[in-house]
Amino acid sequence: MTETMKKIVLAKRPEGMPTEENFRLEEAPLPELQEGEVLVAVRYMSLDPYMRGRMDDAESYASPVPLGGTMEAGTVGEVIESRSDRFAKGDMAFGMFGWATHGVLPAKQLRKIDPDAAPISTSLGVLGMPGFTAWAGITAYGALEAGQTVVVGAATGPVGSMVGQLAKLKGCRVVGVAGGPEKCKMAVETFGFDACVDHRAHGSASEMRAALAAECPDGVDLYFENVGGPTLGGVLPLMKIGGRIIVCGMIAWYNGATDETGQIPLGKFWRRVLVKRLQIFGLLQTDHVARFGEFVREIAPKVKSGEIAYVEDVAEGLENAPEAFRALLTGGNTGKQVVKIS
Amino acid sequence: MTETMKKIVLAKRPEGMPTEENFRLEEAPLPELQEGEVLVAVRYMSLDPYMRGRMDDAESYASPVPLGGTMEAGTVGEVIESRSDRFAKGDMAFGMFGWATHGVLPAKQLRKIDPDAAPISTSLGVLGMPGFTAWAGITAYGALEAGQTVVVGAATGPVGSMVGQLAKLKGCRVVGVAGGPEKCKMAVETFGFDACVDHRAHGSASEMRAALAAECPDGVDLYFENVGGPTLGGVLPLMKIGGRIIVCGMIAWYNGATDETGQIPLGKFWRRVLVKRLQIFGLLQTDHVARFGEFVREIAPKVKSGEIAYVEDVAEGLENAPEAFRALLTGGNTGKQVVKIS
Repeated sequence: MTETMKKIVLAKRPEGMPTEENFRLEEAPLPELQEGEVLVAVRYMSLDPYMRGRMDDAESYASPVPLGGTMEAGTVGEVIESRSDRFAKGDMAFGMFGWATHGVLPAKQLRKIDPDAAPISTSLGVLGMPGFTAWAGITAYGALEAGQTVVVGAATGPVGSMVGQLAKLKGCRVVGVAGGPEKCKMAVETFGFDACVDHRAHGSASEMRAALAAECPDGVDLYFENVGGPTLGGVLPLMKIGGRIIVCGMIAWYNGATDETGQIPLGKFWRRVLVKRLQIFGLLQTDHVARFGEFVREIAPKVKSGEIAYVEDVAEGLENAPEAFRALLTGGNTGKQVVKIS
Repeated sequence: MTETMKKIVLAKRPEGMPTEENFRLEEAPLPELQEGEVLVAVRYMSLDPYMRGRMDDAESYASPVPLGGTMEAGTVGEVIESRSDRFAKGDMAFGMFGWATHGVLPAKQLRKIDPDAAPISTSLGVLGMPGFTAWAGITAYGALEAGQTVVVGAATGPVGSMVGQLAKLKGCRVVGVAGGPEKCKMAVETFGFDACVDHRAHGSASEMRAALAAECPDGVDLYFENVGGPTLGGVLPLMKIGGRIIVCGMIAWYNGATDETGQIPLGKFWRRVLVKRLQIFGLLQTDHVARFGEFVREIAPKVKSGEIAYVEDVAEGLENAPEAFRALLTGGNTGKQVVKIS
């Protein structure tokens, strides 16, 4: 058995889009196990937009990664040594081992994964945090009824594709927003969206508005916000009275919240909130985590049966994680981005 | 009995703050009564910030006043002729007669007012639309619990003063925002707020933030938005996780939503919504009007007993309504602004 592990640490805080110099690949000895702990060899590591926020030293819902610290990530892997009776060698486990080939955590911080229920990588996507985020947001704040119209940003991403499929199951008209004709095709053909608007073909808020208006003739009841920027500006005027906006992410603004792209004056936005009596909900999946079991019981059978589809984009090798992460932030990937570690 | 009436019409749409030239006083014959209608001599007319929106030809929750049309207003007056069995001569009635000395409406569009329950002018304020707005917002979206902190803009206005008093009844700490030391004193001494911050002494968002932070050491659970501008910018960073914002008005921005005062980039605001998991509710009282009877049954006895205080600012004579309205938009009045017509 190998005695060393590899990990990627935060070398320097980025300004705007991260570059290679913000990351550093390091080798380290395998950590020692304490009583109650488990050593895992990571098989798959998740890449998610929230990680960009962790690289900044700014107020957020979680602490930033310290300089020199291992980049955060959800991972799934095989238990190769256990000092807990909750896990045996060979078990599959989900845990926050970060951008690393191996890791040690207390058994109580791990979740056992059934490899027969679905491929283990799904515990990072459709049956993991992104799928749960979508489910929690729709369940807690969506208030969806058959016949309503839902607009979803980042439609082929693991959150957006689940939002769209859940809304279709509720009998809604679902219109996605995605970057490029291939993703738009996938939203419709793979995930069953009624339509999908290519934001790359409509770079301003007014163009997005016109394109979305054509697909949402009755207006928009729910906008599930993953992107920000001109998409938000385009959707806002289409919101119906009493419409809801679930704010889950804003990838267009992650590399600088003062970026002018798609900005409108807050006073103009505030007026829309009032005039349309909008309801807006900031969504963080950790607030809802007590319902994770309910989510898995409801959705895992639908994944197994194929009723809910998922798409994964698999990068190979820890050393390629930074490049895959950069691609994720610019929409260069398709579907749930994971990195195959071993 | 007089055969003519006076009214004030919209002479010209304003740009920014309305001036005298936007209004025109006209004389007209008293309208003829049809079957089922009632003629009322207006005693008191209400002035409210929403009327500024009606002067613009822009999308809102109601149609604009047409050029040459009578300015809208809620009014209360005495029935001087009735062709309905629902009203007798001498009854007091509330109706939307506008900026006018007299008016005719179908009886079913009027609400009978009991002059023994409270002075009839209260049907325009504490027991009317503004008081109901506050009550509906707190009841539907406030989710208040004892010990929480509430910030209320326009604290001595008829909406803000009711919000503050309702929150105090729930056991909350209530911090008002008002313009000038006199109003701040009134918020505390007359309406029982725990503290009140003078926005005229803190003209920027960062100054407002510091002043509010000193009065809200535990952060803010609910912000009841009546003002916008730097007050909003100052409150936002103080919002607690899961905090609520009820958007009822934004008087600082009524004379031009593109005004730069207090604007922050939408991306920065959106980030706060996400990080703090804020919930934001656009409030329009008409959505809740089915509960108006419940409101009166609950609040009228508290007004009669003095448990809920109110303050009125009474202008004299229809011809002085434009000047009083301009004062209202700049905070030059104190308490609920009404105009005594006859």
